[in-house]
Amino acid sequence: MIFLDNASTTRCYEKILDKHAKYLCEKFFNPSALYTHALEVEKDVATARNTILSLLGGTDFSLVFCGSATEANNMAIASGITSAKAVVMSAGEHPSVYECVKSLGNRVSEIIICPLTSDGVVDFDFFSKIDFSKVGFVSIIHTSNETGAINDIGKLCSFAKRKNPKIFFHSDGVQSFGKIDFSVDELGIDYYTISAHKIHGPKGVGALAYKKGTKLKPLIVGGGQEGNLRSGTENVAGIIALAECAKTKFMSLVHDFEEIKKVREDFINQFKKSGIKFILNSQNNTSPYILSISIPGLRGEVLVHALEKHDIIIGTGSACSSKKSENRTLMAMNRSKAEIEGNIRISFSVSEIGLDCKKIVGTIVDEIKNLVK
Amino acid sequence: MIFLDNASTTRCYEKILDKHAKYLCEKFFNPSALYTHALEVEKDVATARNTILSLLGGTDFSLVFCGSATEANNMAIASGITSAKAVVMSAGEHPSVYECVKSLGNRVSEIIICPLTSDGVVDFDFFSKIDFSKVGFVSIIHTSNETGAINDIGKLCSFAKRKNPKIFFHSDGVQSFGKIDFSVDELGIDYYTISAHKIHGPKGVGALAYKKGTKLKPLIVGGGQEGNLRSGTENVAGIIALAECAKTKFMSLVHDFEEIKKVREDFINQFKKSGIKFILNSQNNTSPYILSISIPGLRGEVLVHALEKHDIIIGTGSACSSKKSENRTLMAMNRSKAEIEGNIRISFSVSEIGLDCKKIVGTIVDEIKNLVK
Repeated sequence: MIFLDNASTTRCYEKILDKHAKYLCEKFFNPSALYTHALEVEKDVATARNTILSLLGGTDFSLVFCGSATEANNMAIASGITSAKAVVMSAGEHPSVYECVKSLGNRVSEIIICPLTSDGVVDFDFFSKIDFSKVGFVSIIHTSNETGAINDIGKLCSFAKRKNPKIFFHSDGVQSFGKIDFSVDELGIDYYTISAHKIHGPKGVGALAYKKGTKLKPLIVGGGQEGNLRSGTENVAGIIALAECAKTKFMSLVHDFEEIKKVREDFINQFKKSGIKFILNSQNNTSPYILSISIPGLRGEVLVHALEKHDIIIGTGSACSSKKSENRTLMAMNRSKAEIEGNIRISFSVSEIGLDCKKIVGTIVDEIKNLVK
Repeated sequence: MIFLDNASTTRCYEKILDKHAKYLCEKFFNPSALYTHALEVEKDVATARNTILSLLGGTDFSLVFCGSATEANNMAIASGITSAKAVVMSAGEHPSVYECVKSLGNRVSEIIICPLTSDGVVDFDFFSKIDFSKVGFVSIIHTSNETGAINDIGKLCSFAKRKNPKIFFHSDGVQSFGKIDFSVDELGIDYYTISAHKIHGPKGVGALAYKKGTKLKPLIVGGGQEGNLRSGTENVAGIIALAECAKTKFMSLVHDFEEIKKVREDFINQFKKSGIKFILNSQNNTSPYILSISIPGLRGEVLVHALEKHDIIIGTGSACSSKKSENRTLMAMNRSKAEIEGNIRISFSVSEIGLDCKKIVGTIVDEIKNLVK
């Protein structure tokens, strides 16, 4: 099987299974308990936290583990918003930011939604004209889950904070962490969200990194775990797995980036050679891990099913929105109805390095030609 | 190692590891995606849900999976409370209920806290005198995590609902599910909380069963997973593991209950024979899985550390509260300061069936005699 939907989720690294199982069956102790075995587990969780913080490049950051990146995004938003102030987000946010901000709309003075350029990034012209004096919280996705477009978070954040140093800036980094080279220190942001299952870890583990001193309120209260910020017995095995996967990803991050870039370019070149008409949904400032194209006249999901028969798995936009009829991100990029319907998302992982792109794109193109009459 | 702190967490069943790993590395697809492999995973999650609902004995129930029982408790409370109405809970609730209700205190008209009898159950005399016409939501723990005392939820719920049929009744069943024989239909309740890691499953998975039609609001919003009730990519491997563990526990539930009861009684008899002075914190209507005793003159945590040297692990009250100095449940049972300080919690699993109790209790008693001068 050729799995090309790695932006939706990834296959868990087999090499972490033993360590993962160890924390289920041997070091299974509750980190909140008093005895030595439990204290050791508590220490292991602390080590995982420090490992991740160091990979994130946060010198003055802390990190809270939770059940998903969605929860981390919700936590940042619920903590960062202020009733008297406006919230800024982009039109291309993941639903876990977009829907959360919308749902808390009555708790803020205004929601300002930044449009996207036709290349999928935040329109800086619009952004720079926002009256930031009335803004309390900004949330801009780092790498778009739909198109791979990378927002220049450092630039956006420094601009907003220069206008109003009291702003809290959050970025959903789920498609960036372990894939593109950055540090939260450089970005200058206050909150950053990551996920395990997008970097070959288990589902059910996310984390929110936050600048020390930044306000953070728990969404879930109880036994006071995670420094009283996220109660509930820690998913120890999942946390350890997240740290292990992150270490693996970072070990070859720059190398993988370059190699995946070649794969993506190869795909694009093969598509161009084939003569089919397509639109590349993000050209510049793009993550090589995601290739979003639109083929007018095609219906994305029909191609997905046709390719399944060849054991090639691709996606149609994000899994979260794939069962819905619309694609908010592409709509914000002014794509036509036909371009949105004809959208496919091919997303890579390290497994695709050295792949025979010609053959795969050949199969995809054949099916496209069958379907677009 | 003799692990006698199974109320805090349990060792994961080794036999589920293969299936768990299968959902991490083979059937790792995002259940929200469109292709057949993903739809199969979505079906597997639905099967797990139905399995658990059937074990819970809920004919008109549905179930939402989440990241912990703490989250499930928080979700039930946030959904069930009504601004104009009072909330009733017991003084012996787990912190994930107690602290959550307290934190939402400004969103209800009144919080009524039911005292406990000296045997650890809700004082029915107090409960029956509550003016339920002003109450909107009741949360009573099924089996106490501190003492093992089992509240008669069926009786409490039918009493409250007879007085006011509009009441929503929640019960935290974390220490009951898979351990004691009941059905949610019999209990008559609206919400019921369960956890995977208390029945030999992984940490990081909980669920809230709820009567169809009962109001339920998401705590976490985004991609709309779990019928829009709990967004975030589903922890598929964890969910499958929860269902597998539940099936195993229910297969021998009644047999295990009787066997564990013998173990608990054996422990009590050995303690009695030893001549040490102790108070049994729950005598009647008790889960055999938990044995809470108080030994005045002892400090519980000192005994915990002394027994570690013999590779015997016991607890001091719940892991969630063990690092805090007080024990709210025992205080509500009118235990003296010395009795609370001298509290230990020995909690069993099926691994303890057929255990040489005499030798273990002998070691515990020797250490107690060393420590209580």
